[in-house]
Amino acid sequence: MSDVKVPSPTLRRLPKYLNYLRRLQELGEVAISASTMSRDLDIQHTQVRKDLAVTGVQGVPKVGHKIDILIDAIEKFLDWNTLTPAVIVGAGNLGSALLGYRAFQRSGLSIVEAFDLNQDKIGQKLHDVTVYHIDDLVNHVKAKQIPIGIITVSAKAAQNVANLLVDAGIQAIWNFSHEKLNVPPSVIVEDVELDSSLAELSYHLKQRH
Amino acid sequence: MSDVKVPSPTLRRLPKYLNYLRRLQELGEVAISASTMSRDLDIQHTQVRKDLAVTGVQGVPKVGHKIDILIDAIEKFLDWNTLTPAVIVGAGNLGSALLGYRAFQRSGLSIVEAFDLNQDKIGQKLHDVTVYHIDDLVNHVKAKQIPIGIITVSAKAAQNVANLLVDAGIQAIWNFSHEKLNVPPSVIVEDVELDSSLAELSYHLKQRH
Repeated sequence: MSDVKVPSPTLRRLPKYLNYLRRLQELGEVAISASTMSRDLDIQHTQVRKDLAVTGVQGVPKVGHKIDILIDAIEKFLDWNTLTPAVIVGAGNLGSALLGYRAFQRSGLSIVEAFDLNQDKIGQKLHDVTVYHIDDLVNHVKAKQIPIGIITVSAKAAQNVANLLVDAGIQAIWNFSHEKLNVPPSVIVEDVELDSSLAELSYHLKQRH
Repeated sequence: MSDVKVPSPTLRRLPKYLNYLRRLQELGEVAISASTMSRDLDIQHTQVRKDLAVTGVQGVPKVGHKIDILIDAIEKFLDWNTLTPAVIVGAGNLGSALLGYRAFQRSGLSIVEAFDLNQDKIGQKLHDVTVYHIDDLVNHVKAKQIPIGIITVSAKAAQNVANLLVDAGIQAIWNFSHEKLNVPPSVIVEDVELDSSLAELSYHLKQRH
């Protein structure tokens, strides 16, 4: 794969720069130095330069980075300058919260349909997105060639949902369940690890006592 | 600090083992070998042994690990065998979803109160947790000596909320906002990086095309 060269920590930091730059832009700023970014974001100066270099932009001595150019470069690099359609499977609390999270649109994600098993939810609209029965998933995703499936069902149901998404030709799965999914190597799986984050917090808190 | 020796990736993997072991236990299994864990979780065999060693348990040749002992060791190591009280600030979609996420109780987290600015929400119960006005936050958290604050407000509001939590003597902040928080070094901050996870997914998806 051609993406081997971009380290995962760099990829994971890019949204931090992006959020920070968007905030500065909202405040009317037009340029920013790597050293100010380094200080404000608490990331080493050389690391800031390495991270931003992957997007192809380079700072100008004395001037630094033009904020609009840098935002544009990061968005294009992550493909966040266009909306990629996604479906969400599991219209429970978490699924519903994600549907209401408008900020995803700034991250290139457009959730177009939701699926659930619960008859009370079928046909309802959650934050303007219609909930369909999970039996319709394969047909809908195939017909619309949706590339991203978001799994917000329980761990027990997650593998079955993943199988359906794979059958439907999904290209990438954003997995909020705790299940380790088995999918063909051609399917990208990105696990959201709330538990991992909580483990760090819990452990460090315990160490204080 | 005495926790320097436990690498962050190990900490972050422990919940994966825990979820996996709990599932096996539900299925009636009593023992498991490190090599089976390695295969099922797609983590190298030597890594599995190193990860589990931090909890103090050791496998028995031929028998492997007793599942109940391993679950207990991981839970104690993460302090997940007792419930630690937390408050959540921001009772919007995400806050409400987290309140409804009962699985947190299996991760040692008990969300006892919620806070918001929105008058329509004050006094309501969301998933059995009462929503109070944010003006009551400092008094409530101080009085009950709540150690964990969960921030689910917008990036713009997050620093102000963090300041209130610090004033109230909070020990750790689980930050779901996109804001980089400035807090005294004595306060633990763990950022939940949904955007980072989505950045990995988006970039790898783009590389396919």
